[in-house]
Amino acid sequence: MKQTPAEETITEKAVASFSTTPDARLREIVQSLVRHVHAFTQEVELSEEEWLAGVRFLTATGQMCDGLVRQEFILLSDVLGVSMLVDAINHRAQHTVTESTVFGPFYIEGMPDREFGENMAFTPGVPALVTGKVTDADGSPLANATLDIWQTATNGMYSGQDTEQPIGNLRGRYHTDEQGRYAIRTVVPVSYPIPTDGPVGQLLSATGRHPWRPAHLHFMIEAPGYRTLVTHLFNHDDPYLDSDAVFGVKDSLRVAYKPCEYNNPLAKTFGFKVAFQHATYDFILPRVPS
Amino acid sequence: MKQTPAEETITEKAVASFSTTPDARLREIVQSLVRHVHAFTQEVELSEEEWLAGVRFLTATGQMCDGLVRQEFILLSDVLGVSMLVDAINHRAQHTVTESTVFGPFYIEGMPDREFGENMAFTPGVPALVTGKVTDADGSPLANATLDIWQTATNGMYSGQDTEQPIGNLRGRYHTDEQGRYAIRTVVPVSYPIPTDGPVGQLLSATGRHPWRPAHLHFMIEAPGYRTLVTHLFNHDDPYLDSDAVFGVKDSLRVAYKPCEYNNPLAKTFGFKVAFQHATYDFILPRVPS
Repeated sequence: MKQTPAEETITEKAVASFSTTPDARLREIVQSLVRHVHAFTQEVELSEEEWLAGVRFLTATGQMCDGLVRQEFILLSDVLGVSMLVDAINHRAQHTVTESTVFGPFYIEGMPDREFGENMAFTPGVPALVTGKVTDADGSPLANATLDIWQTATNGMYSGQDTEQPIGNLRGRYHTDEQGRYAIRTVVPVSYPIPTDGPVGQLLSATGRHPWRPAHLHFMIEAPGYRTLVTHLFNHDDPYLDSDAVFGVKDSLRVAYKPCEYNNPLAKTFGFKVAFQHATYDFILPRVPS
Repeated sequence: MKQTPAEETITEKAVASFSTTPDARLREIVQSLVRHVHAFTQEVELSEEEWLAGVRFLTATGQMCDGLVRQEFILLSDVLGVSMLVDAINHRAQHTVTESTVFGPFYIEGMPDREFGENMAFTPGVPALVTGKVTDADGSPLANATLDIWQTATNGMYSGQDTEQPIGNLRGRYHTDEQGRYAIRTVVPVSYPIPTDGPVGQLLSATGRHPWRPAHLHFMIEAPGYRTLVTHLFNHDDPYLDSDAVFGVKDSLRVAYKPCEYNNPLAKTFGFKVAFQHATYDFILPRVPS
């Protein structure tokens, strides 16, 4: 049914109520928010029961959050594609640098510094080595860049979610050498479901969506004078690449893990006593705009 | 800046991800929600910091809620005008019946049944009597309709918010007699601020809005075969009638409290020993559509 004049008046009154907001940017955001939330409410002609169900859903989402590694509103933003949209809006027109993707809710600050090639896996899995360079857009190596890394164990859980894992498991801060090179010893990432025991899980279940993310390794790469890069490397052959529950996949971020035997020269360098998988990827960071 | 093709793709992927939702109505709602949330994000070009501020605001709003009388998401819906919009959408084209308004977050179920004219005020205030009839659209009286009433004490707090008040203070379930008449003995309502100690209060403060609601008495009126009416009666001379923080005022719901001396015949009927204020209002309920 079409909007009635009474309904239009309510929207205009609500927008006008924010017209004296001192901060111009806050005014713009809140007035746009009111218009779009009203337009949604109007378009679907939300019933009172549906409105109350929405209130309860949002309340439960807030109450599911705790301090460390459970941020259900980030998860909601992720499964609605909002996180990737914010990422796209904020990283336009940077075709010469590595693409970014979602931050996700599982990062933990202050994880241990790791040596070049140090093993960050304290739980079992397929042994893996990830190596490459960090450079600027001209190909010049960035020495002493920090690569903050996190991934799940092979049970699909991050440390912090899973009390069986030491907190530093499959997490750590690596650093590039003088030639901009990095080396991470770990296990091959596995696909895993996002947490389904909260409101976001109920939403996915009610809408017939699966909760799986394709296997990936998280990176947050920082170097002075360069813009921080938040991204993933996805296993190139994962079955969920085309249906990532959080829409995070970009083709340029797919990487192949290639089998290496125990007698490969890299095995000696990085201390592998058994066969392992080796992936390589070079990251390109954009300069901070001057 | 204009939406890029990459951004449009994200929106379309997110909408499409819900296309196999089994329930058609849920599919309609969630797909519309995704489009409108993305349109908002796009229109204001939300930065990553602003997105995170939004996540934190929503989280704090959920965590401010508790079971009984603090529902911060209803309060947020109220101050954004969404609650009144839902009310308007769900009560269209009923010009022959009493208008509805916001339910608000302060209702408590299971309050005491009250006799005709019983005093529900256990805290001080200006003594008041509210009387009238409940009828159908043809003017036929509705006998034994239930009027569930709630209002703040003169300190601006509802019982449940204020641990000093007995829970039944200024609350109760009145019933109409055979002629459809009701009578409520209470105190004259006062204007009060909605709770400002949570995220909604921070929003109002940051946007330069005041938190006041004009003085009112809440009604939820139920009669078998009729649609439940949720409404208020507003003091007709309140200074906040034109700037209600939750946009709830409708002209037809204004009511005048008229002074009556202690020797007025109503004083004897209803047991007033001092001067009091008297308001009258007749409610008209719509039939449940058959």
